[in-house]
Amino acid sequence: MRSVSIIGVGCTKFGERWDSSLRDMIAEAGVLAIEDAEITGEQIDALYVGNMSGGRFIEQEHIGALIADCAGLSRLHVPSTRVEAACASGGLALRQAVMAVASGYCDIVIAAGVEKMTDVSSGTAADALAAAADREWECFFGATFPALYAMMAKMHMRRYGTTHDQMAQVAVKNHHHACMNPIAQYQMEIGIDDVNRSSMVADPLHVLDCSPISDGASVVVLAPTETARRFSDTPIKIVGCAQASDTLALHDRRDLTTLDATVHAGRSAFRQAGIEPRQVDVAEVHDCFTIAEILAIEDLGFVEKGHGGRAAEEGLTALDGEVAVNTSGGLKACGHPVGATGIKQAYEIALQLRGEAGRRQVDEVEIGLAHNVGGSGGTALVHIFTR
Amino acid sequence: MRSVSIIGVGCTKFGERWDSSLRDMIAEAGVLAIEDAEITGEQIDALYVGNMSGGRFIEQEHIGALIADCAGLSRLHVPSTRVEAACASGGLALRQAVMAVASGYCDIVIAAGVEKMTDVSSGTAADALAAAADREWECFFGATFPALYAMMAKMHMRRYGTTHDQMAQVAVKNHHHACMNPIAQYQMEIGIDDVNRSSMVADPLHVLDCSPISDGASVVVLAPTETARRFSDTPIKIVGCAQASDTLALHDRRDLTTLDATVHAGRSAFRQAGIEPRQVDVAEVHDCFTIAEILAIEDLGFVEKGHGGRAAEEGLTALDGEVAVNTSGGLKACGHPVGATGIKQAYEIALQLRGEAGRRQVDEVEIGLAHNVGGSGGTALVHIFTR
Repeated sequence: MRSVSIIGVGCTKFGERWDSSLRDMIAEAGVLAIEDAEITGEQIDALYVGNMSGGRFIEQEHIGALIADCAGLSRLHVPSTRVEAACASGGLALRQAVMAVASGYCDIVIAAGVEKMTDVSSGTAADALAAAADREWECFFGATFPALYAMMAKMHMRRYGTTHDQMAQVAVKNHHHACMNPIAQYQMEIGIDDVNRSSMVADPLHVLDCSPISDGASVVVLAPTETARRFSDTPIKIVGCAQASDTLALHDRRDLTTLDATVHAGRSAFRQAGIEPRQVDVAEVHDCFTIAEILAIEDLGFVEKGHGGRAAEEGLTALDGEVAVNTSGGLKACGHPVGATGIKQAYEIALQLRGEAGRRQVDEVEIGLAHNVGGSGGTALVHIFTR
Repeated sequence: MRSVSIIGVGCTKFGERWDSSLRDMIAEAGVLAIEDAEITGEQIDALYVGNMSGGRFIEQEHIGALIADCAGLSRLHVPSTRVEAACASGGLALRQAVMAVASGYCDIVIAAGVEKMTDVSSGTAADALAAAADREWECFFGATFPALYAMMAKMHMRRYGTTHDQMAQVAVKNHHHACMNPIAQYQMEIGIDDVNRSSMVADPLHVLDCSPISDGASVVVLAPTETARRFSDTPIKIVGCAQASDTLALHDRRDLTTLDATVHAGRSAFRQAGIEPRQVDVAEVHDCFTIAEILAIEDLGFVEKGHGGRAAEEGLTALDGEVAVNTSGGLKACGHPVGATGIKQAYEIALQLRGEAGRRQVDEVEIGLAHNVGGSGGTALVHIFTR
């Protein structure tokens, strides 16, 4: 397989984008990425787009053809493929794009992610998001996404002594990072007390433990590493790229405090990259809820199982910690337009590795990682990046 | 790239499957295909599933994890990817699976397609299907799918003198074929008068010019050709595999009587296979409406542009014609569970090439073709098969 590199990135502002349609946002991110890569549309061999639920959110499926169209590529008849794995749709698009280049099928490939979530009521949006869980065996019995993650949190608290203050610290840290990220949805500092005093959603998760409903789009442009320097002075190599599945329903898992899909995708990606978790300098992990970041840093091997809460409390995952986690603000504070998230993670890691992350830049970044989860862990994607 | 072969196939009965859920149907087709290939779950490296609108039809996204789960593969953490390109979702899943094997990423890969459409009212289903068109520039102005294809039909009639009786003959032929196909939804003969007397949907298309709303699932198992004979005495080689895009909205096309995505995907697939259209013995083409089959046989090069209506009338596409088209009964009479259709086409061609198509078996089949379209032609997939 050929080595694959990122030669251009683009991302819209995340947030409640009342003024922009899905089409507008994908065009905005696409133009930024294509300009960054200094390519023309004619050079693009294929597009992959991650989108979770265009059907429910904006009554539009066939998002692949739509993005080819608004990129002006439909007249060139460039193949365009939508992929979906709930909140991991972006990461899944990135992996399909990497495979297309690595295999030699294509040279220049676009990996995009987009979601327009605020055209429906928040109730309808929550219902659409619940379609990531097992409709027959979870949702019909009243389970919601916060409730599923709340059960994981409760078990983690009981087994490992994790406290809600430790979870809240994840939100505090990610909001702090978001204040330094111009595309972030919530550029405001919060304290542990703010999290504790915010409305309860599903015990022990308060509203400030939860990622928001967001609009946004992100795009990265991929090329074979051997030609990447023709397009970019700072190409970013993708040295690990893995995907794993698990049971759709939480109750079928062997352990509620581990996402086995993350563990398996992580191990596979680290093996491909030939590195150890402790070598990672900066990571974007899937913090759809604060407990999810704690599970992720354990499941990826950054800290021992059960130590994730303490790691947050002790600042091991802060900007100046052993591994800077969610420097973008994460899903929690940068925002979570579900289909876009996995690509935004790659965008943030690319900026960090290029030294272009502004006030949130981590010193001496050599290795970055992106971790994207679908549903309560039915799908996980892990990508590892280096210069 | 490695040569890829089909080593196993399975398909449920298509129709109104009130007794079966999406999960039931994918398991049914999956077990048939895995038994046919004589493999075990442990041998499967990846799954790709085509599904258009689980979100709208059954409030379930994340269908990749779901099918890994009901195949018992989630505990093995096998990567499972849902792809979507409206009614071409099945063909798109097949192509992604072919790429995964051809590139050497995987050895044994499942390509599946499934749709459960009858859990909602027909109005809701029609609305969900309209999400394949351009919501902002077509649907909001009142366009429906039959209306878009009716415009193509009107233009074809005016430009080439095509008659409604010629279109009706497509339905008559496909219903005749379906009578010999045990999985077909409509195993009943109809005549031209029946089509002409059936309710008008969008002039000139009557209800018997239209494919139905259906439930069903189809699965094929792929392996590298070099090892295919270990699994199957009659592996079917995939010698052409191409995808093309076009504008999402019909009004942006250069010509309403040609689907350029079909033309481009067809040319690319024929080039890969090193054959000419006239060498194809049996073809499953995307007859979502009778006019669509006429456009397809022209755009694929089986007949000259404008001669498609006459070809149907003169029996050139009948079982004993120059190229037997839609021996399964096509979308029109075998049924059209949208995500499953592209895989069912490959299933039918595999049966024909294996000589296992029963009463509808075509004599001396050497080369088969499958043609799957998304929306009004925003996406097209063409696959070419041989023994």
